[in-house]
Amino acid sequence: MIQAKAYAAQSPETDLAPWDFERREVGPHDVQIEIQYCGVCHSDLHQIKNDWFPGVFPMVPGHEIVGKVVKVGDHVKNFSVGELAGVGCMVDSCQVCENCKDGLEQYCLEGNTQTYNNLDRQGVPTYGGYSNTIVVREEFVLHVSDKLSLAATAPLLCAGITTYSPLRHWKVGKGHKLAVLGLGGLGHMGVKFGVAFGAEVTVLSTSASKEQAAKDLGAHHFVVTSDPAQVEAVKGSFDFILDTVSAEHDMDLYLSLLRTNGTLIGVGVPSQPYSIRPFSLLGGRKSMAGSGIGGIRETQEMLDFCAEHNIVSDIELIDIKDITASYARMEKGDVRYRFVIDMATL
Amino acid sequence: MIQAKAYAAQSPETDLAPWDFERREVGPHDVQIEIQYCGVCHSDLHQIKNDWFPGVFPMVPGHEIVGKVVKVGDHVKNFSVGELAGVGCMVDSCQVCENCKDGLEQYCLEGNTQTYNNLDRQGVPTYGGYSNTIVVREEFVLHVSDKLSLAATAPLLCAGITTYSPLRHWKVGKGHKLAVLGLGGLGHMGVKFGVAFGAEVTVLSTSASKEQAAKDLGAHHFVVTSDPAQVEAVKGSFDFILDTVSAEHDMDLYLSLLRTNGTLIGVGVPSQPYSIRPFSLLGGRKSMAGSGIGGIRETQEMLDFCAEHNIVSDIELIDIKDITASYARMEKGDVRYRFVIDMATL
Repeated sequence: MIQAKAYAAQSPETDLAPWDFERREVGPHDVQIEIQYCGVCHSDLHQIKNDWFPGVFPMVPGHEIVGKVVKVGDHVKNFSVGELAGVGCMVDSCQVCENCKDGLEQYCLEGNTQTYNNLDRQGVPTYGGYSNTIVVREEFVLHVSDKLSLAATAPLLCAGITTYSPLRHWKVGKGHKLAVLGLGGLGHMGVKFGVAFGAEVTVLSTSASKEQAAKDLGAHHFVVTSDPAQVEAVKGSFDFILDTVSAEHDMDLYLSLLRTNGTLIGVGVPSQPYSIRPFSLLGGRKSMAGSGIGGIRETQEMLDFCAEHNIVSDIELIDIKDITASYARMEKGDVRYRFVIDMATL
Repeated sequence: MIQAKAYAAQSPETDLAPWDFERREVGPHDVQIEIQYCGVCHSDLHQIKNDWFPGVFPMVPGHEIVGKVVKVGDHVKNFSVGELAGVGCMVDSCQVCENCKDGLEQYCLEGNTQTYNNLDRQGVPTYGGYSNTIVVREEFVLHVSDKLSLAATAPLLCAGITTYSPLRHWKVGKGHKLAVLGLGGLGHMGVKFGVAFGAEVTVLSTSASKEQAAKDLGAHHFVVTSDPAQVEAVKGSFDFILDTVSAEHDMDLYLSLLRTNGTLIGVGVPSQPYSIRPFSLLGGRKSMAGSGIGGIRETQEMLDFCAEHNIVSDIELIDIKDITASYARMEKGDVRYRFVIDMATL
């Protein structure tokens, strides 16, 4: 076994703290990565607090992982020691169902294996990226460009693909009016991709103070959602809304901003159900959709697109000892736009 | 003015009763129809009871209207006295917005004028089809075939188009597994159209007793939704669910029956908001959509399709004096599948 270090939550009631544990040995199809940076996703906090469902403890969060390949199994074909590599939200899936065969491992019909807070296919708990090293089967390891800031690349593995994938799936681009709801870790990537794909992008935010920041990210327009006049002015105007908010919010209001045949795509995960009036949908043949991360092939496509177009996340690099304080700031939306842990501080 | 007779509700607290009133004279672009049959839609009951919003009283319900043209205005081009004609849920719209120009008058950006329980564009209340006659501008009058039972054609004007339109919009047909949720006035038409379009159709119903009836309508499969084993067996299996239910129901359960990328299309209108867990959508890139009736061009297309394929509604013809008793039966789902009023009994 491989001795590993991490920050873990021992229970939903305790803060993250140092923890030593073991990873499996590198198997013939495995890649071992020395983790250099790990992004901090809002879902890390949801999961250590059991907001969504009872978790597997001790829990080592983190699914925005980048680092260097330090060992590969005998049968590994696509990775070599010394290369940069990344791991996102999944580390395994059945590989044989129709969704896996379609490159939609995130929707594996047997359920994918999440990078942490899950049992793997042998029943062993998975531990995430707030750690010095990880062992992952080759099919779930991504190639990472050395042209981009490595730390700022980490959030692409979740925040990036979670926004890239639906925009691609719904073919959002030139001629479309796209609203991005919420300007956090996901939202700021949604703006960057929306702009890169040629859409006319509006940021919808509760905070008037974020206007300049939104424009700096490339957004064409900004609407403060607490100002009824500004909201009224954009009623019925958007082809798509990318909804990145993971707190409760007024779905009927946002659906009213869609044009006829418009689609609101939810990628945030509020802990309470959405409440939607039937007329909000049928009054304009509108759709409320959901989208979860993206498949491995598409994640690689996204990373390659980012390398080609020089797209990374805007980050604040933190020491791992500051993780609890950073969670508190993240809960208040006080981060532009993603915390990334420098794993050298572990 | 034209003297007209009807059954009307004087308030949400009173039953329908005979009422005399006036219709406008036939204008240059108007068609006057002597109403022979009018279908009874669940929304008639919702509206006289103010379930959705405060209504315009006295209220004459009815928007599944068929009869004979008895007078046409000087500029009317497409209708002649003596022909059969129909009127559905709308009698006017702005005719100039982008949706009207696209043949989507139901989504008129100024709001369409509903056949009853609405003020027309001159501010005059509209009165529906539980009446002996109606005057409607030519653009909102439909041609009705004399090859089909006229009484059984009436429900096509709402129940028919409400189910035909979304199945066409989402291109449901050969190779698709379609579930129809609820086997009432809308649902039974959804089954007929789904089968006619080549889909593999499953009826989902709370009533085991409806199995034979569903098969008689052409459904290939039947699932009793109160039987967990039957429901479990169809999890993740449908490309589309046409949800015709206008009572509260468990959306998360029905969304779980969709395949990856599946769409649930709501055409019923429960009075309470839908409650939807975010994971029910993003766990398989699913969509919850809504669709409202259909445009005039598409309604004519649907009527022509029905004439060609010999499709009508299954109905129970009633006397108008039995309307309140029929509402009571409709509320219990005790009708196969649509009451139609014989207006000769007025």
